[in-house]
Amino acid sequence: MIFWKILFLFPLLTLALAHETFDSHLLPRPLIIEYQEHTEPHIKEIQEELKLNCTSWRFSVEANNINPWKTIPLECAEYVKDYMTGRAYGFDLERVSNDAGVYAKSVELSGDGKDVWIFDVDDTLLSNLPYYADHGYGLEVFDHLEFDKWVEKGMAPAIKSSLKLYEEVLSLGFKVFLLTGRSEGKRGVTIENLINAGFRDWHKLILRAADDHGKLATLYKSERRSEMEKEGYRILGNSGDQWSDLLGSSMSIRSFKLPNPMYYIS
Amino acid sequence: MIFWKILFLFPLLTLALAHETFDSHLLPRPLIIEYQEHTEPHIKEIQEELKLNCTSWRFSVEANNINPWKTIPLECAEYVKDYMTGRAYGFDLERVSNDAGVYAKSVELSGDGKDVWIFDVDDTLLSNLPYYADHGYGLEVFDHLEFDKWVEKGMAPAIKSSLKLYEEVLSLGFKVFLLTGRSEGKRGVTIENLINAGFRDWHKLILRAADDHGKLATLYKSERRSEMEKEGYRILGNSGDQWSDLLGSSMSIRSFKLPNPMYYIS
Repeated sequence: MIFWKILFLFPLLTLALAHETFDSHLLPRPLIIEYQEHTEPHIKEIQEELKLNCTSWRFSVEANNINPWKTIPLECAEYVKDYMTGRAYGFDLERVSNDAGVYAKSVELSGDGKDVWIFDVDDTLLSNLPYYADHGYGLEVFDHLEFDKWVEKGMAPAIKSSLKLYEEVLSLGFKVFLLTGRSEGKRGVTIENLINAGFRDWHKLILRAADDHGKLATLYKSERRSEMEKEGYRILGNSGDQWSDLLGSSMSIRSFKLPNPMYYIS
Repeated sequence: MIFWKILFLFPLLTLALAHETFDSHLLPRPLIIEYQEHTEPHIKEIQEELKLNCTSWRFSVEANNINPWKTIPLECAEYVKDYMTGRAYGFDLERVSNDAGVYAKSVELSGDGKDVWIFDVDDTLLSNLPYYADHGYGLEVFDHLEFDKWVEKGMAPAIKSSLKLYEEVLSLGFKVFLLTGRSEGKRGVTIENLINAGFRDWHKLILRAADDHGKLATLYKSERRSEMEKEGYRILGNSGDQWSDLLGSSMSIRSFKLPNPMYYIS
């Protein structure tokens, strides 16, 4: 044991002595030390600056301050990927469902079957994360044809926390409306996907009709909500990952914005 | 020089030899190492969990998912303080002003003097951060009397990035309306404070009249916006730190939510 420890210290001693005989800049060691001392804090600073910048960007997205936007900022590509694939996205989804659940339980329902909770479908009930994982998490410009192929597979998994809220509002006695930007042609695959993902007992699934095409989502969804109101429904809760699910006319008493830093729909 | 280096290595050699003669657990060094190994990651984990939790809470506040709330969560006291006093709050404020500025410049004004930008006052143009620094950054329940004393001082500084946006929209030709939850009795001190902070040339400063007391901010502000519309004004932009500044009826074409994780006004 003593032998090994002396053996370990020997090169250090040698080095200490060697320093005297060589010019220090010829040895790689001091250069490496200098490199670490000067650049590591610099890299850390850049990383912190980037995190500050991208967190700030994400909040401006979630507060609807930037509107519209086409792709995520290039410098936030890694940040958004980490957010979506790490714990934060799931954590945020869980919180929105819990907050919505607390509100849903606090509402006194009339019991006449006219109390409504609206859910959006894409990235509210069904997750398109597998698709976006293959498309840079929002870094690529939206490709309608590619996305349609994904939708046609009917393989989007449930967002678990949304399924929990969904079952909760159903059991409380809300009438559930699904209001999606998908077009009428996708009705079959959407129903199949929803059922396979565990969703059931919705009162109505509303998709874009032929004359809704080209309409901004905010207008299309406002018109459908307005129709619900005309039919005597009271819209008490609305869950969506896009502000266009929630804003406009005939707004819900309370709206719940699910996080989505990957894309923006006007 | 050689002497000093050998002198430096000597204690290491001594230690290496000394280890053989003592039982290692009698020496404090290995214990300290064990302590660090087992608890530091644990503390770090707790801190990361807390950060995840409080960032998620802040997101739900800024997206208006929790509503209403009275005080910040106790466990986020340090987080909110760090956010408000560190760089992040200023960074976020700056971004909102920039985003609003980009929009303001993109709007084609009619030139008939009816194009309006609305600003809230408290924590939108004037900062109450000095007050909240003395009151736990939102940890204490709101104390109306204490806050009134602060307002009466007329010492609230300008939010610099808001002043920049304010001057920008004025120079673009917007008519500026200030719409505040402060009551009519505070008109004098509010004007004095605004002018001392650098604000000028607003078209109208609207405060709560006697019969607005007890009204929810959302309703009071919606009514005032509705009056503006009846007078022929077009509300093109609206800046506020509260959702009650922005939501309701007669909403602005575009709204800009300034960050405020310290308090909530319904």
